[in-house]
Order: sequence, then structure tokens, then C-alpha cells
Amino acid sequence: MKPTVQMIMDALIEPVGRLEKTVDTLKFGDPSMEVTGVVTAFMPTQHVIAQALAKKANLVIAHEGLFFSHHDSEITGGENRIGQAKHRWIEESNVAIFRFHDYWHRYMPDGITAGLIRELAWEPYVSLNYPAASFLNIPPSTLRDIVAHVKERLDIPHIRIMGDLDMTCTRIGMLAGYRGGGALAIPLFEQEHAELVIYGEGPEWETPEYIREAIRQGKRKALMVLGHAESEEPGMKALAVRLAAMFPSIPVHYIKESPLFQTI
Amino acid sequence: MKPTVQMIMDALIEPVGRLEKTVDTLKFGDPSMEVTGVVTAFMPTQHVIAQALAKKANLVIAHEGLFFSHHDSEITGGENRIGQAKHRWIEESNVAIFRFHDYWHRYMPDGITAGLIRELAWEPYVSLNYPAASFLNIPPSTLRDIVAHVKERLDIPHIRIMGDLDMTCTRIGMLAGYRGGGALAIPLFEQEHAELVIYGEGPEWETPEYIREAIRQGKRKALMVLGHAESEEPGMKALAVRLAAMFPSIPVHYIKESPLFQTI
Repeated sequence: MKPTVQMIMDALIEPVGRLEKTVDTLKFGDPSMEVTGVVTAFMPTQHVIAQALAKKANLVIAHEGLFFSHHDSEITGGENRIGQAKHRWIEESNVAIFRFHDYWHRYMPDGITAGLIRELAWEPYVSLNYPAASFLNIPPSTLRDIVAHVKERLDIPHIRIMGDLDMTCTRIGMLAGYRGGGALAIPLFEQEHAELVIYGEGPEWETPEYIREAIRQGKRKALMVLGHAESEEPGMKALAVRLAAMFPSIPVHYIKESPLFQTI
Repeated sequence: MKPTVQMIMDALIEPVGRLEKTVDTLKFGDPSMEVTGVVTAFMPTQHVIAQALAKKANLVIAHEGLFFSHHDSEITGGENRIGQAKHRWIEESNVAIFRFHDYWHRYMPDGITAGLIRELAWEPYVSLNYPAASFLNIPPSTLRDIVAHVKERLDIPHIRIMGDLDMTCTRIGMLAGYRGGGALAIPLFEQEHAELVIYGEGPEWETPEYIREAIRQGKRKALMVLGHAESEEPGMKALAVRLAAMFPSIPVHYIKESPLFQTI
């Protein structure tokens, strides 16, 4: 017998315990439906969902929201024809869509951050796991070599960085997703003496401006901005590996989207 | 007689009227000090302030905060050695620093947005000014040509875009600064039928994901992300022109910072 949507959700929630307030709900589909296959993805685009259906997978587990907003409420009733067309298409497809954001971030260590570190082949170098950050001690490498490694491992065509490319780094703070703000990133430099922080996305007037002043004050500091999706996709890839081990009776696939932007 | 810091602040605030709640306060210096020269800048880095002092300007008017945060309170007392060193250096320099953020955005039209449009030489094409956005009808141009024009006029080495470079655009929505979120940008597409929105900075999971789905649904939509500083610097340059006309007895300079990031 195949597992139901509810069984898979329960198994994923179990290590954390049910949260009172969370965006992680079943957005579409029937919890009692038998699951023929699972697709995990960072962003549940229509393209990803269509690929899931083509693979006969009827459950999509996605990290982000369906309608261009962290909270569901911001879209419902809004005049958004693109979102409305997507909504109708999903309803007609009978696919189940479960959002797995808050729980995955609450795993110990954070499933998204751990997936990113795994994709970078940096698991041996983790020295500390905080709830929102991980700290690494890598073998001494130049910033130039680290940039090349990250671009190659994560398949990122363009990356935004600050710092001297010839600077040697060993102490790296990792912040996946929208955790690049000063409140999380600056203490990694100030208290943990990070030389380099790698984050997904963050406000440009906070951490980057701190780094600019730090470099001008003669400090050996560097910053690398991956992009939000680029930093969190590997965590959803890692989730597929985990789910495949938990539910060997059903096929599990990870689907990666193309990059949002082209850089010109 | 030269104007005082207070006189210049009053003159800048006057068109809006005093706001009850604002970040626009005198951060350093004495309001009764006679002003020998003014420097305007987007970000009051130590480098910008040092250049002001070298020009014998004792008043810096900046759009953003001094300590890597929109609100002053988030830095005070924090363990931030970079910020503390900057704080001590400014105190010793006796320079006056006035933040001009909220008021300039409340001008009609918004001084920052108007400055951006002026720098792009697109003033003749403005069709509507909303408080947070302006709407333009430019002569039909391909996205490729618009990207080239924007990069050249604003001196931006790399720009992130979405959309077909051969697509012809006339209807453009402009959102300076951190106004790229879905709540502001999506209505420009949905209600105003923008073909292209140009913004400074915004959350990557909102407007860009909307654009991705819109393009996949066959809509002619495009997005251009300038960077926060890149989108707001021209507004502080325009402020220098305005101040020079208001206070002809003192020299007024605009100082542009270098870009935060290099793209690799």
C-alpha cells in the first residue's frame, strides 16, 4: 500500500513537532490521497508542477509559496490574473501541494542550510550549527578559489561578491535564504570572527555596507551573495534524498528551476 | 552670512511639513553651526564624509543611515566594532550629518524617483506619478536597448533582468529603492499594464516569481533590477542641484560611492 499525503506530511513534521503558527500547510489536494510519487522543489512554479505530473507524481513538496508571496493571504482576492490562472490550472490538475518551509528550517541542523553545505561538499568542515547559521572552518583557500568552487558546485553563472579575491579564508559563516540582514550576518563577523559570510539574499544597506566599512578599516572581510533560490535549492534536493529513504515504495524526484535572472 | 545647519534642514523639510515619526534627524553636529559647504550622498560612508571634509564642507546630507541599518536604535549599544570606530571618527571630525530619506520621498513627485528619471533622460515620458511609483510611456524600444541605455546613463556594470531582450517596450513602471516587492510592483503590471518594471531592490520570491509565471503564460513582461544604491543615488545628485540653487552662497557637491559588489 502506498503512503497517503497525510502520512508523508506527518513523517516530515514529526522531528519538529507541530507548530502553532506556520505557513507549512497543504495548499491543494486531499490528505487521504495515495501518493504515486513525490517531487520536491524550491519554488512550486507551474513548470515544476507540470513536470511532476509528467512523472506521475501527485504530491509536490515546495519550500516557497505558490503565489509570489510568503503568506497565502496576500494573494487571495487580489487582482492578480497571473496568480488566478495558475490557481485554476492547479485545481484542475488534482495535484497535492504541501509547503515545507518552517519545519525544514527547524530541523537540527536546519535542513536547508545542511543541504547547501552538503552540495558544496563542505560537510567535513562544519564547526558549529546555530538555528539560523552554520559556521565552517575550511582548509585555507583564496576568495577567488572559493568563488570558483561555489559557482561550479551550485551551477551559478554570476555571483555578487565583496572583498579581495586574493585574500585567504578559513572561517566562513553560512546563511541560507533571506538571512543576509545585519542582525544575523554582522555577529558572525564580530563575535565569530568570520572572514567570509555566504548568504542567499539580504537588504543591501545592511551587511554589504558593514563589509564596505570593515574593508576600508583594513579588516580582512568578504561577502558572497548567492541569490535566494540558489542558496535554498540544495536543501530541497537533500529533502528528496531523505524522502526516498523514508518511503522506498514511491519514486521521489527533485526538480530544479532555471535561474530567475540573467545578468547583463 | 552663511546659512546654519538648521536653516538648511528647515528649507528641505518645508515642502513636506514636519513628520511626527521619521528617521530624518540630525545625527551629528550642532544645528546652529554655519555651513561652509554641503555634500549630498546616497550612503554616508566614512570615505564620503572624508571627501566632504577635504572639500571644506561641514554638512553631509545622506539618504541612508550611518550604521548599516534603517533605524538608528538597532546599532546603539550593539557590539559592532566597525560601527563604533566609525562613530568615534565622525565625532572627532565635527561634521554635521543630516539624514534626508523620508522627506525627500514625500516630495511631489518623490525626489528620489524624479532624480532617477532625470538621470535616465526620461523626464519627457512621465505619464503618472504615484507616491511610490512613476509610470512612463517611452518611444518603442527593445528591452536590449533599454538595458544598454540604463547601464550607460547610470554607469552600472552589471544588471539583472528577466524577459525577452528583443521584446519592444513602451510602458515602464519605475520603483526606486526597496520598493520591488509584489505589493507595489505587481499592480503596475496588472492594473497599469506595464511591460517593464525597473526597481532598485526587492524580495526575490515575489515580483521575479510573478514575472516568471507571467512570461510562461505568454505575457510580454520584463523586469530590471538596478540595485538599491544604483536606483537612489541619482535622487541625491538631483538634491545637490536643488540645494545649490536654494543656497547660492555655499558650495554644494554630490559624491557618488563605488558599487558595493563585483559580479563574477
